[in-house]
Amino acid sequence: MGTLVFDRWWFRAFVAVAMFFACQLCFMISRLQNLDEEKITLQAEVQTLERKRDTLLMDLANKERDILRLDRKEQQLEVLVRDRLSLASTTRKDDPMIYFVTPTAFRPAQKADLTRLSYTLSHVPNLHWIVIEDSDVTSKSISEILQSWYLPRGVAQRNAALAWLRTQLSDLKRGAVYFGDDDNTYDLKLFDEIRSVKVAGIWPVGIVGGLIVEKPILSENGTVEGFNAIWKPDRPFPIDMAAFAVNISVVTSHRGAAFSYDVARGYQESHFLTGLGLTRSDLEPKADNCTKVYVWHTRTEQSKLSKDDWRRLTAKDREQFDDVEAHCLGL
Amino acid sequence: MGTLVFDRWWFRAFVAVAMFFACQLCFMISRLQNLDEEKITLQAEVQTLERKRDTLLMDLANKERDILRLDRKEQQLEVLVRDRLSLASTTRKDDPMIYFVTPTAFRPAQKADLTRLSYTLSHVPNLHWIVIEDSDVTSKSISEILQSWYLPRGVAQRNAALAWLRTQLSDLKRGAVYFGDDDNTYDLKLFDEIRSVKVAGIWPVGIVGGLIVEKPILSENGTVEGFNAIWKPDRPFPIDMAAFAVNISVVTSHRGAAFSYDVARGYQESHFLTGLGLTRSDLEPKADNCTKVYVWHTRTEQSKLSKDDWRRLTAKDREQFDDVEAHCLGL
Repeated sequence: MGTLVFDRWWFRAFVAVAMFFACQLCFMISRLQNLDEEKITLQAEVQTLERKRDTLLMDLANKERDILRLDRKEQQLEVLVRDRLSLASTTRKDDPMIYFVTPTAFRPAQKADLTRLSYTLSHVPNLHWIVIEDSDVTSKSISEILQSWYLPRGVAQRNAALAWLRTQLSDLKRGAVYFGDDDNTYDLKLFDEIRSVKVAGIWPVGIVGGLIVEKPILSENGTVEGFNAIWKPDRPFPIDMAAFAVNISVVTSHRGAAFSYDVARGYQESHFLTGLGLTRSDLEPKADNCTKVYVWHTRTEQSKLSKDDWRRLTAKDREQFDDVEAHCLGL
Repeated sequence: MGTLVFDRWWFRAFVAVAMFFACQLCFMISRLQNLDEEKITLQAEVQTLERKRDTLLMDLANKERDILRLDRKEQQLEVLVRDRLSLASTTRKDDPMIYFVTPTAFRPAQKADLTRLSYTLSHVPNLHWIVIEDSDVTSKSISEILQSWYLPRGVAQRNAALAWLRTQLSDLKRGAVYFGDDDNTYDLKLFDEIRSVKVAGIWPVGIVGGLIVEKPILSENGTVEGFNAIWKPDRPFPIDMAAFAVNISVVTSHRGAAFSYDVARGYQESHFLTGLGLTRSDLEPKADNCTKVYVWHTRTEQSKLSKDDWRRLTAKDREQFDDVEAHCLGL
């Protein structure tokens, strides 16, 4: 019977069909498994991506918050800057330095004048303020030597500043030196003029030398051909200390140029500028061809005080003043 | 034969197996199709997510660039602010305003003094600067009426400021009024003292009234019990104009209080303060219990000029000055 069945045609057909279906099924199952795996992989991928998306969205939200915060901060800062820095230009890293030399001496209004000047200078970028106070010892000995002679103001202080500049900045090529008294008045525009000086710059000064404006007279081609000074007009440079600035390298390369107790009154500027080897033709007219006044030779009035107060001020002994007076005088 | 085949058991088994496999196959195929569809959907989803991720990453990069830019900008601004606003505090939106009243009159150093003062005031937040220039017409007529009488400085200008304040700010409850001359010197710390005034504040003034410091004398419990003034010490308020500030509402609610040409010299402050209904006990001692000097009564020296210059300055005719002189004088 067994052999009979295997030999029957229908059995063979049956087996063939079964085999075909089985193969098909196996193939299907394997594809299904593959697809299932693929599906799981893809689902995992989707999950990863979704997680990633959520993280990114959170990051974005954080960053947007950051930006909002920074924007607000920037606006605040800009308001701050606009409201209170409107007078000054922005920081200029590559701009030459200004060495602003202020000789100063003790007097009732000294603290007031220096306070006021500091508020002006705090508007100026790239400015190095060199304040040289009259040392009691030095000036006392000098005044003792000279006794009742006329003692010009600020000679020792300005020379001390020159010595400092020559020691500290001997290699500097750019930058300008300006001698600015502590009670003069400076327009902020002056500092751009000082900064642009190549060798020596000159400009008008207001209310000085008995004139409303003391200024150089320019020739038609724009060079300095004279001065309008009425006081000692025969000086080589009949100008005020506030009228000029010189390049730092000119100062450091002429180590002999200085101020002196041995020159006639009004000749300090001429003595210093000729010592730097400068002539009138070296002067660069600034301040819109010397047509604008950016510095005024203002003087703070001598305080009206009692003889006893003046005696105490001359002694300059902290013990003789109460705390409020000491605060007022900067002692 | 046909019927025979269909009735055979093996044929039935054969059909049953074939049916089973066919069903299985159909099911498999349908699952496969489903899975294929799912796969395509998932792949599309993955693509969408990937695209989304790329967009988000790009967004993030942009935002990070933004943040970097803002950070850099903020740093620059902060450097700017630190370098040059170090003297002033940050903007204080809710802080009371200071109404800083400056009477001014034409003179050689007027432009210089106002320039210098503007640089100080530009450091102060929440300050409204009211500059009242002596009108030629008014003061001429007044001086004609009074002829050779002593004419106190700034009366008309200060009253004009009071009228303006009373018209413009009648409803204001917070804010302080201060009368600040154009050649006085102000420490920036003064402005915080002015701002903190509730009714009327008082503080020492440097170099005024023949004293190094003119100041109120405080009792042990910190109230004002007297003054150290040596010039006309019997005045109700023997103090300088720079020594006090009053709340704006006190000014607007006492419309009669003003300065006057009819009071004796040195009595302007007393006339105004009593007009506001104030007594010594109303004064709030400021500036660290009146132990610090934040304002100096500096005076800019009268310019030394020729008679002809003074004649031109008195005429104040723009035509009589050249362009540089006019720029110097602010004409």
